Amino acid sequence: MSGRSHTPVTVLGLGLMGSAIAKAFLAAGHPTTVWNRTAAKADALVGLGAENAPSVAAAIAAAPLVVVSLLDDAAVEAALDAAGPALRGRVLVNLTSSSPEQSRMRAEWATRRGAEYVDGAVMAVPQGIGTPDALLLYSGSETGYRTAEPALQALSAQGIHLGADYGRAAAFDAALVSVFWLSLFGVSLGLALAGAEGIQGSELVPFTPAVLALLPAMMAQTAAQVEAGHYPADDTSISSAYEAFTTLRAVIARHGIDTGVLDASGDVFRRALEAGYGADGLARLVPILAGGR
Amino acid sequence: MSGRSHTPVTVLGLGLMGSAIAKAFLAAGHPTTVWNRTAAKADALVGLGAENAPSVAAAIAAAPLVVVSLLDDAAVEAALDAAGPALRGRVLVNLTSSSPEQSRMRAEWATRRGAEYVDGAVMAVPQGIGTPDALLLYSGSETGYRTAEPALQALSAQGIHLGADYGRAAAFDAALVSVFWLSLFGVSLGLALAGAEGIQGSELVPFTPAVLALLPAMMAQTAAQVEAGHYPADDTSISSAYEAFTTLRAVIARHGIDTGVLDASGDVFRRALEAGYGADGLARLVPILAGGR
Repeated sequence: MSGRSHTPVTVLGLGLMGSAIAKAFLAAGHPTTVWNRTAAKADALVGLGAENAPSVAAAIAAAPLVVVSLLDDAAVEAALDAAGPALRGRVLVNLTSSSPEQSRMRAEWATRRGAEYVDGAVMAVPQGIGTPDALLLYSGSETGYRTAEPALQALSAQGIHLGADYGRAAAFDAALVSVFWLSLFGVSLGLALAGAEGIQGSELVPFTPAVLALLPAMMAQTAAQVEAGHYPADDTSISSAYEAFTTLRAVIARHGIDTGVLDASGDVFRRALEAGYGADGLARLVPILAGGR
Repeated sequence: MSGRSHTPVTVLGLGLMGSAIAKAFLAAGHPTTVWNRTAAKADALVGLGAENAPSVAAAIAAAPLVVVSLLDDAAVEAALDAAGPALRGRVLVNLTSSSPEQSRMRAEWATRRGAEYVDGAVMAVPQGIGTPDALLLYSGSETGYRTAEPALQALSAQGIHLGADYGRAAAFDAALVSVFWLSLFGVSLGLALAGAEGIQGSELVPFTPAVLALLPAMMAQTAAQVEAGHYPADDTSISSAYEAFTTLRAVIARHGIDTGVLDASGDVFRRALEAGYGADGLARLVPILAGGR
């Protein structure tokens, strides 16, 4: 522990993520007050040195920096509403998952109550909190962020403030969660297919990083093509990717594995083909998706 | 160029991948003969020192090692059928995308014609061929693979023989393509959403590797849980992931972006919830998918 003074912090919400956050603050030497709707979840943290506040108002009164990790925006409003005027003068860092619109509304709501509001998105699993790999994105009050930043370093050195728009962290979050969500679904589908082919999941895992490593470069190329509004097929065309899809779909269907998500992706390709984009690269999918159904 | 003798190789098929393969053999010093249905595609390679064979039979006669990269299995059969008895005594490495069943049938077909058949799957983009990052998976004839291996090093040092089952490389391929396909779709969806939120794709790209880096560990954990038949919610439960999905879907729908693929994934979650698996971890999705619809 360093000789510097450590800002006291309060953590509201002790689910898997909130507990990991409180633990990281404690490990970094911050006097940490916690609150959870069902108080028993605080026990393990009290054992590590946390104070368990009897109410949200008492928790907020205990520290100038309040970090929130609750189930959803409705839970945030319900918890903070009960705190009355305690928010005044506090820096509120809300890491609860929310849409950009919800973040902007919550910011307006909290600012009206005298808080400096910072919205945040945690792009990490609970086990990653406090490790150098954890990515945390913030936006909103710059005054608030500058005040909170030294303490937030306890959660990750990779904390990035994306600007004053309160909804910007949530917008980045939603875009990155889109990538993650379907990738995770791809992992599940790949493991289901491996199992049907007599391949152990553990045999497949070692080859996955090489495949995923192709994505950032393809994404950068796609982003550049979308920006330019020009979609050359440098790697593969919509029509040859659709061929590959057809082969894959047949393999999966033959094993009786659910093809629903794949089929929905095939629909998007068919729409692109019907619109005459077969010779374009896969970046063409972005405007197709953006155009809705 | 080393002083060792370099096995002559023949490459059938000069699409983006076949051309990259031929270039890599030439760059490594192999006397390289090429053939393509439309001969003009060979011009650039002839400029690099390749021989352009007038027929498939002549191409196969020119080298003991024949590498095939055609559009699909039907194109492989059509091309090789025309070659008559030329396959006898050749090592045939078929890198054409195919299903495990097609690979097994093609192996039987080629073995009957006297070839040593090796099936392969290229887990790389054409630009990756010949770089250390390219992953190539092989299965089938071990004699054939041992003979071909020194030359195949020109394509990638990461060449792995997965066993004698001719369909095994294609099975790994299909499972990894499942991961890749939906991940790529996630990238497209993420970029569509970013655009709608006023975020440039190029601003989003730098944060993507940190998000994708979460996947291999989650996949390993999922594989272990599937193997054990036990699905604890260590990171997140089916029901809380479904909450996150609902938030994400609303953001995407509000922008008028196509929700088809997301909705299909939501259907799988709903089926898991209806079956009473809400408190399980996401690994439960694997048996749900494997059970079909």
